[in-house]
Amino acid sequence: MVQYSLIYEMKQMPGEGRNKMAEQMKYHIAIVGATGAVGQKMLETLEERNVPMASLTLLSSKRSAGKKVPFKGEELTVQEATPHSFEGIDIALFSAGGSISKQLAPEAVKRGAVVVDNTSAFRMDPSVPLVVPEVNEDDIQHHQGIIANPNCSTIQMVAALEPIRKQFGLKRIIVSTYQAVSGAGNVANDELSEQTQAFLNGDDHSPEVLPVKGDQHHYPIAFNALPQIDLFQDNGYTLEEMKMINETKKIMHADELQVAATCVRLPIFTSHAESVYVEVDHDDCSVEAIQQQLVDAPGITLEDDPANQVYPTPLNAANKRDVFVGRIRKDLDHSNGFHLWIVSDNLLKGAAWNSVQIAESIIKHKWFTKK
Amino acid sequence: MVQYSLIYEMKQMPGEGRNKMAEQMKYHIAIVGATGAVGQKMLETLEERNVPMASLTLLSSKRSAGKKVPFKGEELTVQEATPHSFEGIDIALFSAGGSISKQLAPEAVKRGAVVVDNTSAFRMDPSVPLVVPEVNEDDIQHHQGIIANPNCSTIQMVAALEPIRKQFGLKRIIVSTYQAVSGAGNVANDELSEQTQAFLNGDDHSPEVLPVKGDQHHYPIAFNALPQIDLFQDNGYTLEEMKMINETKKIMHADELQVAATCVRLPIFTSHAESVYVEVDHDDCSVEAIQQQLVDAPGITLEDDPANQVYPTPLNAANKRDVFVGRIRKDLDHSNGFHLWIVSDNLLKGAAWNSVQIAESIIKHKWFTKK
Repeated sequence: MVQYSLIYEMKQMPGEGRNKMAEQMKYHIAIVGATGAVGQKMLETLEERNVPMASLTLLSSKRSAGKKVPFKGEELTVQEATPHSFEGIDIALFSAGGSISKQLAPEAVKRGAVVVDNTSAFRMDPSVPLVVPEVNEDDIQHHQGIIANPNCSTIQMVAALEPIRKQFGLKRIIVSTYQAVSGAGNVANDELSEQTQAFLNGDDHSPEVLPVKGDQHHYPIAFNALPQIDLFQDNGYTLEEMKMINETKKIMHADELQVAATCVRLPIFTSHAESVYVEVDHDDCSVEAIQQQLVDAPGITLEDDPANQVYPTPLNAANKRDVFVGRIRKDLDHSNGFHLWIVSDNLLKGAAWNSVQIAESIIKHKWFTKK
Repeated sequence: MVQYSLIYEMKQMPGEGRNKMAEQMKYHIAIVGATGAVGQKMLETLEERNVPMASLTLLSSKRSAGKKVPFKGEELTVQEATPHSFEGIDIALFSAGGSISKQLAPEAVKRGAVVVDNTSAFRMDPSVPLVVPEVNEDDIQHHQGIIANPNCSTIQMVAALEPIRKQFGLKRIIVSTYQAVSGAGNVANDELSEQTQAFLNGDDHSPEVLPVKGDQHHYPIAFNALPQIDLFQDNGYTLEEMKMINETKKIMHADELQVAATCVRLPIFTSHAESVYVEVDHDDCSVEAIQQQLVDAPGITLEDDPANQVYPTPLNAANKRDVFVGRIRKDLDHSNGFHLWIVSDNLLKGAAWNSVQIAESIIKHKWFTKK
């Protein structure tokens, strides 16, 4: 409680004094949606990264409240998230669905917390920074209480393309995704494993979750490919595809960047892969020059040695924080066109780790104050 | 045996007389590689299509010789393929690997057979027609004994794009594939099912087949994606990717057509899917106009109704002969750019059915004579 009071007093101080105190401080962090697929990864990541925490509050829906979750050798009890849950919280990591974020993120902000929101609720709000730290970390400081974590498939793509964009410019992106089911939550993981076993046994299995929970029809994912992630929009694109298109432009501050996406769900538990075609601005770009940019880039692991069959795969990328890039080839017809294969753990860099990175950045730069 | 002699005599006749007799005739067909994944599908397809056959000879390696195979209620015994096996054969469907084709196809031709070869042995030989009947059926008549069946992933793509090319012209193709393991044969099917079961049980399973039998390294395919099909070439592309690029240009007689491909193997037993971006020549093209071309096109089933979640999937396309097309969208930045999702059974249209189609075309048009 001493800790709590200190934090509370600190919150009452004007920006600079508060930041000064924060330097010697640890923070009270909350996870909203602590029992979900992403929430669990947030916990693991906080534990691994040793974020300077005074306290950790785990919040969830009423249904999951009371569950016990291990953290650093202790057991934490998950509490029901209410507006009052955010009293004294410095940073709240939200990953409990868009409607929860819409309802509770403003309440958290009202109570002085900075919200890092992993849902799509605020991503395209012009007043909310949409951040992949490797690309636009500086945007965080302009927040008005909420910072949005982009869509999983977008994060890994922009993280891999930013070093190329910086050096050679970027005119156009055409991406086809190979996405894991865990992006649709633990229920989708369960559906994939149960359905796969039924298929191998020659038994029937009625799909109830994928491609989109709550949509009219459900199709089998076991040994199949579903070219639908999220709901269809009037223009024939899915919401996932429009997220990749719109979020990429916002994160890169590049309205004129041409982005096209086709998003496909596959029978893979973890890690999204992406076949990406890019056109760069400069004519003097080469495969070697791109490799050189990527090998030194933060958060990127280059795995690109075809002669030795070295390239990224979803299984190898799982449970790792980096974005893996390989299969870099020059287009055979366009000298400024290149093809890449980008893979990353959709629950880590695609969600939990990127959120924790934003939290670490807020702490490191003392960007708690609303602008 | 009477039938055999008749066919034999017919072979000795000059072209026209032979074709005249052929009208009243049935044909002696051979399948080389009858016990393989594609060979089995050739048998099924010949049975379903009621190709006018006097006789069917099943050939294989020495190892598989002696096996019994059901056909139209009878049991056929597989024989070892030797040069003499082709005496009296009218049409020989080869699908037993490139080296067998290289060795035995010329022997078959020497003995008067027309060879439809499903391997890559002769595909890029300028004297050998490379045929997808919906695209370039007429090329068959210029054969010098051998007609090549294209690569599976190429066939379904060109079959779907030809109606668009005919009406609107085609400038550029960028394709990312989602390919089934059965393209790598029955051993790959077995590896996928055994490995998947081991994975679900939490057991180890050492990959020995995929991505490429005989390559240095093998990687798990269960719940994974492998961006390698066939061996890597010096330019960083795989052979599968180069096949798609080169074969597409040859089939469409379009050297200037720009084609780029990224080929990926997935944990799917049957049917390849493809995310395809095309740029057409005409500026007045629309999604509706493309749908109109495809709905009437031979061998194509349009499945494109996003509002009702109607789109092709590998499971739905399996065991069907058509190529299924959906998710047709206009590019948001390029008015002559379109995205499509193309799915077909890789063992049927991608191999067995396309070969039988060529055989049917030879019979129908009496294109037995070498040019």
